Amino acid sequence: MGFTQVKTFSFRNLQDQVVDLEGLNIFLTGQNGQGKSNFLESIYILCFGSSFRTRTESLLIKHGHSETTLFGTYNRDGEYSNTVSFNYKGNKKKILLNGKAVKDRKNLIHNIPSIVFTHDDLAFINGTPDKKRWFFNQIMSIYDLVFIDLLRNYRKILKIRNTELKNEGSKLMDVLNYQLAEAGLEIQKKRESAVKEFNTVFTPIFSSISQLGKEVSIKYEPSWKDCFTVEEINVKLEKSWKNDLFTGSTSTGVHRDRFEYYMDNRNFSKIASTGQLRLISLVMRITQSIFYLKKTARKPILLLDDVLLELDSERRNRFFNYLPEYEQAFFTFLPGEHAYDRIQENVKMYDVSEGVLTAK
Amino acid sequence: MGFTQVKTFSFRNLQDQVVDLEGLNIFLTGQNGQGKSNFLESIYILCFGSSFRTRTESLLIKHGHSETTLFGTYNRDGEYSNTVSFNYKGNKKKILLNGKAVKDRKNLIHNIPSIVFTHDDLAFINGTPDKKRWFFNQIMSIYDLVFIDLLRNYRKILKIRNTELKNEGSKLMDVLNYQLAEAGLEIQKKRESAVKEFNTVFTPIFSSISQLGKEVSIKYEPSWKDCFTVEEINVKLEKSWKNDLFTGSTSTGVHRDRFEYYMDNRNFSKIASTGQLRLISLVMRITQSIFYLKKTARKPILLLDDVLLELDSERRNRFFNYLPEYEQAFFTFLPGEHAYDRIQENVKMYDVSEGVLTAK
Repeated sequence: MGFTQVKTFSFRNLQDQVVDLEGLNIFLTGQNGQGKSNFLESIYILCFGSSFRTRTESLLIKHGHSETTLFGTYNRDGEYSNTVSFNYKGNKKKILLNGKAVKDRKNLIHNIPSIVFTHDDLAFINGTPDKKRWFFNQIMSIYDLVFIDLLRNYRKILKIRNTELKNEGSKLMDVLNYQLAEAGLEIQKKRESAVKEFNTVFTPIFSSISQLGKEVSIKYEPSWKDCFTVEEINVKLEKSWKNDLFTGSTSTGVHRDRFEYYMDNRNFSKIASTGQLRLISLVMRITQSIFYLKKTARKPILLLDDVLLELDSERRNRFFNYLPEYEQAFFTFLPGEHAYDRIQENVKMYDVSEGVLTAK
Repeated sequence: MGFTQVKTFSFRNLQDQVVDLEGLNIFLTGQNGQGKSNFLESIYILCFGSSFRTRTESLLIKHGHSETTLFGTYNRDGEYSNTVSFNYKGNKKKILLNGKAVKDRKNLIHNIPSIVFTHDDLAFINGTPDKKRWFFNQIMSIYDLVFIDLLRNYRKILKIRNTELKNEGSKLMDVLNYQLAEAGLEIQKKRESAVKEFNTVFTPIFSSISQLGKEVSIKYEPSWKDCFTVEEINVKLEKSWKNDLFTGSTSTGVHRDRFEYYMDNRNFSKIASTGQLRLISLVMRITQSIFYLKKTARKPILLLDDVLLELDSERRNRFFNYLPEYEQAFFTFLPGEHAYDRIQENVKMYDVSEGVLTAK
């Protein structure tokens, strides 16, 4: 079923309002800057406790106000009703699930899983290695909570090691190298097998929608490639130790891993057109959704924020054929856009104008 | 008049072909990944000797080939005919203007001035400070050749200063500080007055197209703000000298200047919607074109690479009202896109499919 109702207070440019959402497909139509994406953002925040658009959470508060609050009621698997609320005030956020405070956002992930398709996803395909890594971390975290712990642990060790390097300390270095190698190796193995599995879904769907005639696949390039044991990684860390001491940072490790998109032996993201890059990002999101469903046996909520604009109509239509099963889906679009003709049933439509959602 | 003919050889995915271009408006229609942007890129390269999409020029060569060549014939101000050619082979490029080699790309700028509106322009509005600076450097360079020399000179001094810092040298520091301050101050003054002048064009056009009800303007935030003389800057450089020595780089200067977009006292690029960000980038390009015309009394060639997709139809129409005078304009669009209904006269249409342009 998904969300049945959402209330927003002093959130972005949205007017304070109660929005009824009972429906499989929610369509939001409006001109630029009216509040479509802001409403999608409110849904995402109720799912995960943070925004997909900004880390500066004070920007969520309506101009001239001092706090913002969101309330959501949702129905999980058609069985029982739940509530979730989010409040941000004076640099602090409070998230309540059925009235109880949520301490660790990790515990929210499986509560109302949602997957967002955004304009900025393009940077995860042709942006910096850092952005690409972030994307894969997010994709894997949503279905593998152990992976979140591994990442957190690795980052903690890395931080200590870098501090030691800056202070030119060497006493702890042996222990830290070992710990970093151990934590990193687990992450590397998980990434390796995830990319392998991912390609079995991504490659055929991308081929079918793009009609490119050639296969595109994700290539995982670990910083510690050719290392299969903690010992081998240790040798590598010891080798780069002097250099690391000079720069005050750790030059190898899973925080330097790369994810690239290859067609034959060519880096496809460097030669692809904007439409092709967009399609990669969309198929990655589809793949993420399919994976989530497969790993958890639960259907996600999909948020599609005006991401089909760069696709020609044939590719748009084929894209819809591959949309995975979902609990509920939110789509934003511009007035007059015909991308959504494919979905006709169980639709609730809203016009969005000056921060107000009006049912059509 | 603009370009009358272009020939491409082993360029990107384009088939070797001769394309006749006599016409004020050239429309290129095609599905994703067929070669529309590649053709626009070839025009841009003939204007400036470099691409707007990549710095890795080997990517320009068609897969499996060893060199690429472009030829263009163009008619300037309807008076006489010129030729320009570009060849890239084995890491070297050769540019010929009426048969004579061009040594410094600076000399090309006023030959066939063109202004490109691209998908990636968005990063110049909401990207890193570095990207925003790059955008303004490009905008100013196109009408102010002295500015190019100032930038080149500043970068040269900065590089020497940073090398000295890394080698912990201090003998030359006084001289270098003075030189950096002198070169930087000129750049700062030029940027200050350019932004001021820019706002007189940008702000009213953006207001009129966006219908936002509030004014948006560019804010120049120099790293050396409150410094109006070489001496004042010198004091600043001396103050940060120790810190610079520690990091091995120069922490203040025009290479750290910022350009932001403000609405009242709020950083607009942080709260704007995707459509609004796109509109800022488009109006910046319009402003650049108007400026160019004003400063040089010559009309530029415009290259619009599918940049109106995120705008709603009202804003698209208003955008066309503000398109500046041009010598020739190239537009790419998807089949069925109706954004260009506004331009009906003097149009030459091409279908682009699998790297071939076919006149309609």
